[in-house]
Amino acid sequence: MSVDIHPDRYCVHQVTLMEQCDFRAAVEALPRAGIGKTAVWRDKLDAVGVETGRKLLADHGVEAVALCVGGLFCHRAEREFRAALDANRRWLEQAAAIGAPSLIVITGGLADFERDLAGARARALEALGELADDAAATGVRLVLEPLHPMLCGNRSVIGTLGEANDCLDALDRDDVLALALDSYATWWDVELDAQIARAGARLRHFHVSDWLADTRDLRLDRGMPGDGLIDNRAIRRSLEATGFDGPVEVEIFSARDWWRRPADEVLATIVERYRTAL
Amino acid sequence: MSVDIHPDRYCVHQVTLMEQCDFRAAVEALPRAGIGKTAVWRDKLDAVGVETGRKLLADHGVEAVALCVGGLFCHRAEREFRAALDANRRWLEQAAAIGAPSLIVITGGLADFERDLAGARARALEALGELADDAAATGVRLVLEPLHPMLCGNRSVIGTLGEANDCLDALDRDDVLALALDSYATWWDVELDAQIARAGARLRHFHVSDWLADTRDLRLDRGMPGDGLIDNRAIRRSLEATGFDGPVEVEIFSARDWWRRPADEVLATIVERYRTAL
Repeated sequence: MSVDIHPDRYCVHQVTLMEQCDFRAAVEALPRAGIGKTAVWRDKLDAVGVETGRKLLADHGVEAVALCVGGLFCHRAEREFRAALDANRRWLEQAAAIGAPSLIVITGGLADFERDLAGARARALEALGELADDAAATGVRLVLEPLHPMLCGNRSVIGTLGEANDCLDALDRDDVLALALDSYATWWDVELDAQIARAGARLRHFHVSDWLADTRDLRLDRGMPGDGLIDNRAIRRSLEATGFDGPVEVEIFSARDWWRRPADEVLATIVERYRTAL
Repeated sequence: MSVDIHPDRYCVHQVTLMEQCDFRAAVEALPRAGIGKTAVWRDKLDAVGVETGRKLLADHGVEAVALCVGGLFCHRAEREFRAALDANRRWLEQAAAIGAPSLIVITGGLADFERDLAGARARALEALGELADDAAATGVRLVLEPLHPMLCGNRSVIGTLGEANDCLDALDRDDVLALALDSYATWWDVELDAQIARAGARLRHFHVSDWLADTRDLRLDRGMPGDGLIDNRAIRRSLEATGFDGPVEVEIFSARDWWRRPADEVLATIVERYRTAL
């Protein structure tokens, strides 16, 4: 049996309430459910502005554990690549401004690399290397998140924790680079436990949701923990064996179900699943 | 530059014409397009019966390189597991009867294993081990095909060529067990070239299609080679570096596009893509 998750570790990403709540409504709803942490999503933050966002978090006692999602720097053309790096520098500053210690980054997909997957991966590595000093300057770590291999074409050319570990080995900047583990992206991987152990203290974020047996969409059909096929509890055990004791972050993209329910119902369900499925 | 694919290596799976052609119509259409090989699909064969199927292939000079798809043996309950093994024994006999040297097998998904992925994988290994002697008796090899990790829940708990190699290492029956490489399932894998080299002569089948940039479905939205993001030519080079010179098998599940076009148009397109994209 796993040890219960202390309520201090409850954390719900703003994207989990994407359709129901703007920034303010999300920040108001979380404490009502006993949830004190969130990951801020850039479009929500942009809609209110950084200063208002920072103040709303502070006023409601909600801690931002990360800003999502940065990266998206897989461009072959130098001009677009430079523009993407500059955007990430702004996002690092935004993260610092709202007190978030991490910017979660995904590489972006093949984009204009056509079929040159190795080239796109090299570009991702180059981008992380270039941004490391900016991360150090802002005091915000860059957290690389591998996505599910089904998103290789359009969201992330890094599809396993092993590959992400290889990137961090190559860059040797563990002072400012870290990793995020998303159970939905990685649950299928026979190497998962071994790569979690290898990552060790690099793993600073743990995202959870569930894989529905009748999944209908490649991005927007994630399930509530407990409703699908992922043994989230076993993954948590594996992660905690490395010493991890950070938040358990519920991140659900669900166009057909959870985005259509009242925010309080979604959050109450999550709190129940912290006890029964996570 | 890759060497052109000799027309003797052209091969189109019956499933590529799933909606347009029954067994007879497919066997008639292939030679019209200059294609002399196919992989037979069980439901098409069952509809005409093994003897008629065998005769239709012979009469039209079409060679069956494999029967698809077997396996699907990930059941926890002993009765269902035994029934699945018996079904595979019948399929091995069917393959032998139509002169197909291979039965392509996928493991099946988590099915009734709930969240016990390791248990399901152990069951798959047990099944392959049990069926090895039946394969030897029928003279038909069992060819394990890893599917894309997005199908872990419902079609295959083996999602990488590396994992499939591990299975064959564990079973040590390379006399009757082999591997199939499907570019659609594996193109995203940073380990692909290394695992192809490791597999070597185990790789007896090469399935190709393409990953569409706007993929809409987890199973039935494959693209025609050349229309998507996969560098099929590079994967073929990697495979041929191991000595592989077998058929290049086009296997397209395409509910929205290619299954809706006339068979002759589909096949003419494939023949063109053998020259330009494969």
